[in-house]
Amino acid sequence: MHPHQQLIDLALAEDIGTGDITTDSLVPAEARGIGILKAKQNLVVAGLDVAGRVFATLDTDARCRCQAADGDAVSAGSELMVVEGRMAAMLKAERTALNFLQRLSGIATNTRRFLDRMKGARCRLVDTRKTTPGWRALEKYAVRVGGAANHRMGLFDGVLIKDNHIAACGGVAPAVSLARRRVSHLVKIEVEVSDFQELGQALDAAADVIMLDNMTLDDIRRAVALIDGRALVEVSGGVTADRLQALADAGVDLISSGALTHSATAVDISMRITPAATP
Amino acid sequence: MHPHQQLIDLALAEDIGTGDITTDSLVPAEARGIGILKAKQNLVVAGLDVAGRVFATLDTDARCRCQAADGDAVSAGSELMVVEGRMAAMLKAERTALNFLQRLSGIATNTRRFLDRMKGARCRLVDTRKTTPGWRALEKYAVRVGGAANHRMGLFDGVLIKDNHIAACGGVAPAVSLARRRVSHLVKIEVEVSDFQELGQALDAAADVIMLDNMTLDDIRRAVALIDGRALVEVSGGVTADRLQALADAGVDLISSGALTHSATAVDISMRITPAATP
Amino acid sequence: MHPHQQLIDLALAEDIGTGDITTDSLVPAEARGIGILKAKQNLVVAGLDVAGRVFATLDTDARCRCQAADGDAVSAGSELMVVEGRMAAMLKAERTALNFLQRLSGIATNTRRFLDRMKGARCRLVDTRKTTPGWRALEKYAVRVGGAANHRMGLFDGVLIKDNHIAACGGVAPAVSLARRRVSHLVKIEVEVSDFQELGQALDAAADVIMLDNMTLDDIRRAVALIDGRALVEVSGGVTADRLQALADAGVDLISSGALTHSATAVDISMRITPAATP
Amino acid sequence: MHPHQQLIDLALAEDIGTGDITTDSLVPAEARGIGILKAKQNLVVAGLDVAGRVFATLDTDARCRCQAADGDAVSAGSELMVVEGRMAAMLKAERTALNFLQRLSGIATNTRRFLDRMKGARCRLVDTRKTTPGWRALEKYAVRVGGAANHRMGLFDGVLIKDNHIAACGGVAPAVSLARRRVSHLVKIEVEVSDFQELGQALDAAADVIMLDNMTLDDIRRAVALIDGRALVEVSGGVTADRLQALADAGVDLISSGALTHSATAVDISMRITPAATP
Amino acid sequence: MHPHQQLIDLALAEDIGTGDITTDSLVPAEARGIGILKAKQNLVVAGLDVAGRVFATLDTDARCRCQAADGDAVSAGSELMVVEGRMAAMLKAERTALNFLQRLSGIATNTRRFLDRMKGARCRLVDTRKTTPGWRALEKYAVRVGGAANHRMGLFDGVLIKDNHIAACGGVAPAVSLARRRVSHLVKIEVEVSDFQELGQALDAAADVIMLDNMTLDDIRRAVALIDGRALVEVSGGVTADRLQALADAGVDLISSGALTHSATAVDISMRITPAATP
Amino acid sequence: MHPHQQLIDLALAEDIGTGDITTDSLVPAEARGIGILKAKQNLVVAGLDVAGRVFATLDTDARCRCQAADGDAVSAGSELMVVEGRMAAMLKAERTALNFLQRLSGIATNTRRFLDRMKGARCRLVDTRKTTPGWRALEKYAVRVGGAANHRMGLFDGVLIKDNHIAACGGVAPAVSLARRRVSHLVKIEVEVSDFQELGQALDAAADVIMLDNMTLDDIRRAVALIDGRALVEVSGGVTADRLQALADAGVDLISSGALTHSATAVDISMRITPAATP
Repeated sequence: MHPHQQLIDLALAEDIGTGDITTDSLVPAEARGIGILKAKQNLVVAGLDVAGRVFATLDTDARCRCQAADGDAVSAGSELMVVEGRMAAMLKAERTALNFLQRLSGIATNTRRFLDRMKGARCRLVDTRKTTPGWRALEKYAVRVGGAANHRMGLFDGVLIKDNHIAACGGVAPAVSLARRRVSHLVKIEVEVSDFQELGQALDAAADVIMLDNMTLDDIRRAVALIDGRALVEVSGGVTADRLQALADAGVDLISSGALTHSATAVDISMRITPAATP
Repeated sequence: MHPHQQLIDLALAEDIGTGDITTDSLVPAEARGIGILKAKQNLVVAGLDVAGRVFATLDTDARCRCQAADGDAVSAGSELMVVEGRMAAMLKAERTALNFLQRLSGIATNTRRFLDRMKGARCRLVDTRKTTPGWRALEKYAVRVGGAANHRMGLFDGVLIKDNHIAACGGVAPAVSLARRRVSHLVKIEVEVSDFQELGQALDAAADVIMLDNMTLDDIRRAVALIDGRALVEVSGGVTADRLQALADAGVDLISSGALTHSATAVDISMRITPAATP
Repeated sequence: MHPHQQLIDLALAEDIGTGDITTDSLVPAEARGIGILKAKQNLVVAGLDVAGRVFATLDTDARCRCQAADGDAVSAGSELMVVEGRMAAMLKAERTALNFLQRLSGIATNTRRFLDRMKGARCRLVDTRKTTPGWRALEKYAVRVGGAANHRMGLFDGVLIKDNHIAACGGVAPAVSLARRRVSHLVKIEVEVSDFQELGQALDAAADVIMLDNMTLDDIRRAVALIDGRALVEVSGGVTADRLQALADAGVDLISSGALTHSATAVDISMRITPAATP
Repeated sequence: MHPHQQLIDLALAEDIGTGDITTDSLVPAEARGIGILKAKQNLVVAGLDVAGRVFATLDTDARCRCQAADGDAVSAGSELMVVEGRMAAMLKAERTALNFLQRLSGIATNTRRFLDRMKGARCRLVDTRKTTPGWRALEKYAVRVGGAANHRMGLFDGVLIKDNHIAACGGVAPAVSLARRRVSHLVKIEVEVSDFQELGQALDAAADVIMLDNMTLDDIRRAVALIDGRALVEVSGGVTADRLQALADAGVDLISSGALTHSATAVDISMRITPAATP
Repeated sequence: MHPHQQLIDLALAEDIGTGDITTDSLVPAEARGIGILKAKQNLVVAGLDVAGRVFATLDTDARCRCQAADGDAVSAGSELMVVEGRMAAMLKAERTALNFLQRLSGIATNTRRFLDRMKGARCRLVDTRKTTPGWRALEKYAVRVGGAANHRMGLFDGVLIKDNHIAACGGVAPAVSLARRRVSHLVKIEVEVSDFQELGQALDAAADVIMLDNMTLDDIRRAVALIDGRALVEVSGGVTADRLQALADAGVDLISSGALTHSATAVDISMRITPAATP
Repeated sequence: MHPHQQLIDLALAEDIGTGDITTDSLVPAEARGIGILKAKQNLVVAGLDVAGRVFATLDTDARCRCQAADGDAVSAGSELMVVEGRMAAMLKAERTALNFLQRLSGIATNTRRFLDRMKGARCRLVDTRKTTPGWRALEKYAVRVGGAANHRMGLFDGVLIKDNHIAACGGVAPAVSLARRRVSHLVKIEVEVSDFQELGQALDAAADVIMLDNMTLDDIRRAVALIDGRALVEVSGGVTADRLQALADAGVDLISSGALTHSATAVDISMRITPAATP
């Protein structure tokens, strides 16, 4: 089964429901069509496979040929994909396929724009868990397609100790030590700190990664110097495109930004469908 | 069952997966907490019920008290909801609840901003089917909360005849007549036209609603005059906030805009969790 | 996925459960067969596609050739479909396929019988929501195959205001106006009335459709005259085959009858299976 | 979980879909109501529990009080159940609850009518697998409520060897012996025979039950004499209400009739809803 | 759909989750491989079809060739199956396929070992309901493959009356008679007895099968003599491999043992994967 | 929802199917009972919560009181849990609850036995992915309850590079470097090596963990010395209880054993149910 089939089925069900009453009334079952998906603005493509799968879900014999690949930066007017198949199925799938492709390409395009502001930087731009519910895997995929990297996928594949966790354990040191005892030896432990006292405790506890939360640039530079390679350094909070280069220059290893996903908007992609000869 | 339980379950599953290894390692099962959700910017609230349901899904005894209601325009710093319950469940639900609330409030806020540009207008601002796959009902709800109205929910509850449908039937007249024969008598028939020849045909076919696609303001005015109340008039395509007032003044009945949903971004809402006494 | 796959799977699961212990014990896996479905009485066919899908669900290589089409009125003895495939799968699918086909053809046959009683009428015979739970779409399909039309599919695609709704709003006028404000512009509004006072209020409120509930023939004639084309007129309640012609002659637009579905019985269709050579 | 929750959910989903647009527009969320379900004809009640569960599914606080019990023969006008709860939920659940109750009571009523024609008979009236797909357990329950007994629930809990199985094994004897070796020692083996040669073979093979398929009354009497208690005797095929007494008198142990389920129609039950004071 | 697809999907989901991050990072999508499954000890094979289905689930074009058949006793080093297909899919499916095959073959091997201890016996060795939750059908299949027979599949296809049931009815006689009246005529009735008083009551009630629970060998012999063919005799409780021959010699019809499934361990099977040329 | 509800539902469904025909025929709906679960051998308890949940699934008002806690080593005869509730539900849930509890306690008991053989060791005993399909989370939980630790949960939360991955990338160095670039910074990278050449390459590539596969004790000691704290050291393959102490003494950090799960058998736990007074 396609890894995103459940979301695709949900999306088609919410749009088609008890039937596309327009198409079912007007388009003969045997009519065939050709559809061309085209970029209406400059964008970075992401989601062609999912979009193709939407068409294939309604018409197992539909054929999709990609004219671009996920990750390509294309200019307005470029063709992205050509679909051939039953006209009725194509009309029913059109909007859902575009809704997937426009949002995912929007995230990839947004991510690329961020990266363009930190060219040559040695550090990693990573996403967060601020994704659209139900879309975690897809949006993190679009971030990778855009060129950035992923932070943990969820709460299950990485330890990130925050103030509430620390409070529950009575300190950074017991928290880190407890976590290390409980989780698999393949999982690293990250500690979020907001001042230099906590930073010192995290270093003493031998945290693998230290997240500097909402610090000033000066404090970030000082923290990097203090950590001095003993842990990976991540900055988080208030990350805007304008600050990226400065943050990168400060010597951090990771810059995380929720805006990559939660502030991306759909890009403009159209689909033109024309009748094709019945074979 | 809650109407959005399926999406909530999907969202919690993708975030928690095989377990929140940080919280499960560090927070005692009996620890209790109080969480306060607060607006970090001016916004229109939408989604409190869904957010509350996220907490209740992981802790059936969690209690949520709303400090605001969906549709309220609140200013930065306002408290939106207070949650009391098990600390561990609250930490696991936090991000997912916020992801729902931030996106839905983002759409409501965006919609309200559009409406503010067409104050006093007699016509309806409506959404489209350009919604996030899996989120159709939720996003259309947020649009209503923002103050605008909904176009059809999907392909099943309204007829919208486009060029491909017309081509398949051999003309506007046969298309409208065929559709009227096939669909329930409770469903209206809308025809999309892009020039005055098609407009004339739609009028002759007695379409209930006529959609003027991507017309200039002058053509829209002329079309409204021509239709003269014989059908509802909808304008669509290239609807920006700047053009809303002019479109409204042109005398149309409906202005539809995909940007209400596909170009909304998340608003900033935070949650602060503090330990509470165990009862 | 086939639109009725969920019901088909449910039906096969409830019949086969942990296995067809007779067939699994006695019929070799490689044995092949040919099955012929035959009408044992005069009937209108409906459901060939679903029946075929039942066989295909258990044997993806099964081939079904239809000898008749949905909507055909066939006489006793006519062949409806020929199935070729694995004998074991055919024996397991047989009863479920017939159960679908017999009930759907029963509804189509019953519907056709109703229509035969109102030949030449200008008005529409429509069904209701009195369908077998889980079978809404299928039974409404069988009604269309029989030649009648569908009322709304459910509570989501048409407004039908009844006494309880009116009571909750304080009158017909506020109810109609509130509904019109809340629902999509593509949905019409129907009001159920049981006397002439309510009828007057519905007309004043500009209801799109007026349902005359359980009125005498004389009252219906008077109502039609009074409405005079300002709204569509539907009659409902106590609709028997004997009254159809008189109701049609009274000038109504729509006659709705729950009996089309809730009082249809299965028609008699058999399946004869014979061994075929293994290819 | 309620044993029929899946079918109830399916039924509510197909009726409510994206929302009851009438009720959601017009009935305040806090309004409360009382509903009374009443028989409109003489009938045998079946399905009160499922009907109550439909209301409870949409309103977990709804309270249902039964005024009759499944199996009761009630006369027209009798109250069957009183429901108290949220008005909006009650309006949404009404039709689905009635659709369940009307069909199940229809089957129970039909079954009772059959039994009334064979009063005092020592033999068992049983149903078949000719049930509405998705409704096997419910319809077989209604048959029991009506007073008859169930044949096997499906293909998994009893062996019934027919001509195709016999052909696949090369005879009645090898078929019975093979089946006995393969299935659990708790399952009996029935063989369908259509003439006296097959009957003799089934007796020789020590079948536990012998089904006489479509035999004349004379042949049935002769078969019963021949079998002489060595196996249970079931008659099947062409069983009408008129023949029941004669079949019973012929000395068979079981009479099976598909008409109990496939030819039952819904009985008439109404629901009257009135506003109640908000607590 | 494959009869065990649900469990296969569950198993693949719990192992792969959000993705095989090793394989997805390192193995090119187009790379192909050949995998050979080999027995590392003497064993009886069971589960080849399920194992093959695991590979096919992730790679619909994967080809599995069996080198052995379920039920074969193979020696260490024997090849069981060869898989050809996409390398990445094969690496993801490997562990799950082996986990199925190793446990099922473990049960078959264990069962065969039991049977070897009662060679030539006329009585049946049967399993119980002491199976791994979720695996009932699979484990009972492996028992059959190993050469033993199945007791009832679950609570639905056979009556087994125990002390609590008897207490609830006020005696063995009313319990048997009530059950016979309530269940299908195709289902036999078994009564569990632990002393000779109960045994006498079960015989008087004409139970079809009598289960002797935890009796000594002497008592079993005495019981068999007493029953004298009037019912099938099953022994249960404390059945070890060592006692099998003696129990068989005592003249019982059925020996049931939970150890066939609950005490079986996985056998050792390996898979070696090598790169193959891309076609 | 309970984290294992899906497996519990599957287990109850496969056992109860269309109904417990014995209990449904014989035990009155209102009868109540008390059940006591008791260890019949010395064992380490695991799974009380799941077992309790099985009873609660069929009887929402059932009350379970634990007399022991998961992880307790109890002796034969100890009471583990007392259940009070409806007798019929208890009889239906009994076998499934026991099947869960017996297998999970079997794994915990087996794990404790392993740990007893390496008392005082500084290194970690960990499980593998050789778990029963569908039971991954439950069996890994039982291993923790038994006192050992978990390796990665699945393919998604840790990188383990094996020979096939290395072959696909052209060497250990490119494989480690590629993986590090592709996966989250919170995930560690483990490399499996079978000789000293590969070990050197893994060290040079700065693998976080090195797995020594099937090495002799001498080679393991040499490898530990060579690695000298630059990576965690895991041994795997051929780990028997007898070798545990020697492996621990060799200075490795982790010993992984599939036998903890794949060779555990069920322990003996019984349930005695007695009637209770109806309240």
